[in-house]
Amino acid sequence: MATREGYYVRRDNPVQEGHLKCAGVISPSSNIPSVTYDVFDVIIIGAGYAGLSSARDLCLSGFKVLLLEARDRLGGRTWTAEVEGHLYEMGGTWIYWGQPHVYREMSRYGYTKLLDSNADKVGCNYFTSWINGKPRNISYEEEGPAVERAFEIFCDVDGNGGRRIIPYPHDPHFKPEAKQWENISAAQRIDQVRAKLSELELYTLQGFVAAISGNDMNNTGFFDILRWWALSGYSTQGLYDYTETYKIPEGQSRFARTMFDEALATGNLKYAFDTLITSIKDTSVTVEATSTSGKSWSARRLISTIPLNILNRIQFQPPLSPAKSAAHSIPHIGIGAKVHMEVQGTNLRTWSAAAWPDSRIFSGRGDGITPAGNTHLVFFAGNQKGLNAQEDARHMAAEAKKLHEMEIQKVIWHNWLEDPLSEGIWCMFPPGYSFDHLDTLRARHGNVLFASADWALGWRGFIDGAIEEGTRAAMAVVKDLGFPRRVAPAL
Amino acid sequence: MATREGYYVRRDNPVQEGHLKCAGVISPSSNIPSVTYDVFDVIIIGAGYAGLSSARDLCLSGFKVLLLEARDRLGGRTWTAEVEGHLYEMGGTWIYWGQPHVYREMSRYGYTKLLDSNADKVGCNYFTSWINGKPRNISYEEEGPAVERAFEIFCDVDGNGGRRIIPYPHDPHFKPEAKQWENISAAQRIDQVRAKLSELELYTLQGFVAAISGNDMNNTGFFDILRWWALSGYSTQGLYDYTETYKIPEGQSRFARTMFDEALATGNLKYAFDTLITSIKDTSVTVEATSTSGKSWSARRLISTIPLNILNRIQFQPPLSPAKSAAHSIPHIGIGAKVHMEVQGTNLRTWSAAAWPDSRIFSGRGDGITPAGNTHLVFFAGNQKGLNAQEDARHMAAEAKKLHEMEIQKVIWHNWLEDPLSEGIWCMFPPGYSFDHLDTLRARHGNVLFASADWALGWRGFIDGAIEEGTRAAMAVVKDLGFPRRVAPAL
Repeated sequence: MATREGYYVRRDNPVQEGHLKCAGVISPSSNIPSVTYDVFDVIIIGAGYAGLSSARDLCLSGFKVLLLEARDRLGGRTWTAEVEGHLYEMGGTWIYWGQPHVYREMSRYGYTKLLDSNADKVGCNYFTSWINGKPRNISYEEEGPAVERAFEIFCDVDGNGGRRIIPYPHDPHFKPEAKQWENISAAQRIDQVRAKLSELELYTLQGFVAAISGNDMNNTGFFDILRWWALSGYSTQGLYDYTETYKIPEGQSRFARTMFDEALATGNLKYAFDTLITSIKDTSVTVEATSTSGKSWSARRLISTIPLNILNRIQFQPPLSPAKSAAHSIPHIGIGAKVHMEVQGTNLRTWSAAAWPDSRIFSGRGDGITPAGNTHLVFFAGNQKGLNAQEDARHMAAEAKKLHEMEIQKVIWHNWLEDPLSEGIWCMFPPGYSFDHLDTLRARHGNVLFASADWALGWRGFIDGAIEEGTRAAMAVVKDLGFPRRVAPAL
Repeated sequence: MATREGYYVRRDNPVQEGHLKCAGVISPSSNIPSVTYDVFDVIIIGAGYAGLSSARDLCLSGFKVLLLEARDRLGGRTWTAEVEGHLYEMGGTWIYWGQPHVYREMSRYGYTKLLDSNADKVGCNYFTSWINGKPRNISYEEEGPAVERAFEIFCDVDGNGGRRIIPYPHDPHFKPEAKQWENISAAQRIDQVRAKLSELELYTLQGFVAAISGNDMNNTGFFDILRWWALSGYSTQGLYDYTETYKIPEGQSRFARTMFDEALATGNLKYAFDTLITSIKDTSVTVEATSTSGKSWSARRLISTIPLNILNRIQFQPPLSPAKSAAHSIPHIGIGAKVHMEVQGTNLRTWSAAAWPDSRIFSGRGDGITPAGNTHLVFFAGNQKGLNAQEDARHMAAEAKKLHEMEIQKVIWHNWLEDPLSEGIWCMFPPGYSFDHLDTLRARHGNVLFASADWALGWRGFIDGAIEEGTRAAMAVVKDLGFPRRVAPAL
């Protein structure tokens, strides 16, 4: 099945919008029967990993669940496009066995044969940095220790590699002293350590931090970089291992589909895709969700997994508290781009790059070999507003070529920033946001619960955080409603 | 509630057997009604974490589950004794957020405020090693790098810190080359690297390896030490973090109880403690479990979580395959002792030790301060056969005093080796066992499934591995039987 999402440009062709094969497209798009239940137990808005894991948990426990999704596919900010026999992860991609919520699911479903996107490399075997206005190729023997030392200095906020300030990475506010680090930007932190860094260390650090944040260093909260570091075992090797090495060979959409299929197999799941909810009304007895087409559904509880950056578009009745409205009105700053390119030959299979501020592309690297025998490169870049898709592809290709010579065959991407259902990629908080607003984002509003990777405690913005949140919301519903009892069927 | 298990000696008093307060004791010991279901969906033997997680998962999904346990408490080889207001973990203890199966459960139940048993140390602040026949006190500044370097050399089997031989620690046999490392003992591996190690490095390494294995270096498979290393992120710091730093402040028995209580709340759980099963008969339609008292129960499937070292005591009908019988006939070699002592004062709060082969005690360290203001020390030691409990306590106390001066107020332990329901502590394989027998241990026998931390793929022998296995067994049952449908109750 093909999704309407994503952009695909084949050399010398116009941009193709959508029509990309994706295992997460569900057809027919709804299984709501003409005669519906009057009231569901739970309505879940959003079929990303937060919504899917909530739906799965609640269906397993015997609740009658209605899953409503505005897209034509599962996965939210995570989906897999299959183009000419090759899988491209358009959003969330990498997972690790130390990410407890997602790996528990992978292990449970048997997705334990992983793909190491760095393994078995052959090719040019060097790294390109953009230093003082021009690209420079550097051996990994030189680059590795530079990145390692730069991150160690950047993250050593306590003489103990960050361990004292964030001793429990899944409990980020545990130490009140952490607040002082939450208030500064990544740029301010770089200024604090700049004198200790060599030129190479400074430029590679800046490139990687930009790639992590997807935004300007001045807008990026330093604390979120420090959290990634702590979650990754307080090490640069850990950052690679946890955040950009291991993939599910079958693709994320297949994995998401497995979770959906399990929920479906319980017989307790109804769903409707292509269904955009615009208002949520809590009558205190039931919650009513109304879609753009004016259709309404009711349930005893509602779980919203709507991402932070579009949450203020939803009309709530009764209105949200001032604290919640305030939190919803400040967007997270993860607004970068992730772009795939297929480039001629295999030389760049072992290439990687990091650049900031002189290039739109923050980082890139070889991610695999396509069936045509070419190299699949993945880039993280800034967004360039005001370009149409054709211009955007051309611009990104030109920026990639500024970093390194390459013959580009294909460009494939999803414009997450202009996607009205996300308006951003993974969640990164601006400085001073987390201590003020995180608890508020996580709080319920009457019978409405909020679950999203955007306010997970641990791997915020990751698949792991989405599942953490979906699990939490499902537990809260069970606490409210109690377990439905199975009535023995008459024989 | 008090359990009949465990030994407790207070200074100058005789050994007290049992009567230790434990949150895992369930009373009354059974909730099987006089009118029982003719046939359960699933019988689960054993209420350790494997059985508990299976039971919880299956109860949530609407299966009628019967949980049978020979002990008077939950938790199997993990339980918490409360003595004079202080918690002593008698078996499984430490958990980490990078252990996916257990941390997902902790996160789900809200057990996310952890206790760092190394934090906020004051006291003597040194390490004792037993070198060339006598104890030597060494500063942590000297000890830390020695242990780190020793483990790095010991585990560097591939010039890449073990990453090439075990690239996926949750998939231990992924590389066929791993087999060669599976065939050698820890002693043989030490011989291979001995020349590279300083005296201090050698002796501390031996002490820690002995503490990990609970047995003689010659009987210990090197591969299991290497697996712990890989699972811990291929680092010595990781070994500390993953395996001996973080505890659940409420105690493991409380956590186990939460899982049990959730299963119970579904209304689908029946249980009987004090019920030892001795034979399992598969009629191909149902499986029948019979207890020592001659009582029998039937179910469509049976999950055995009986530990490896006592599995060959069960009578199976039809008989097990020769491969399974062979695997069950070789015990794992984890037969060490874990012993708690309360010692006068707080000086030893920051003390630690490792010793082998000249001391019965392999390792020990401060683990907390008791309400009386004394130090709680935890030791790992070898087992000494032929001693009664009183002699055993005296012997362990004497061995501890050989390492360091201390005034011992209490000795508390569980003799896991002589416990007929375990005959060992955590699972450690002898050399040459894993590649030959692991798959066989994991295989089903008709309608009987086998789930135990003793044959987990990842954290084998850990709480995480037990939950991994319980999850796997529950999934297998669902695959066999399909989901029970909830029938809407008549209103």
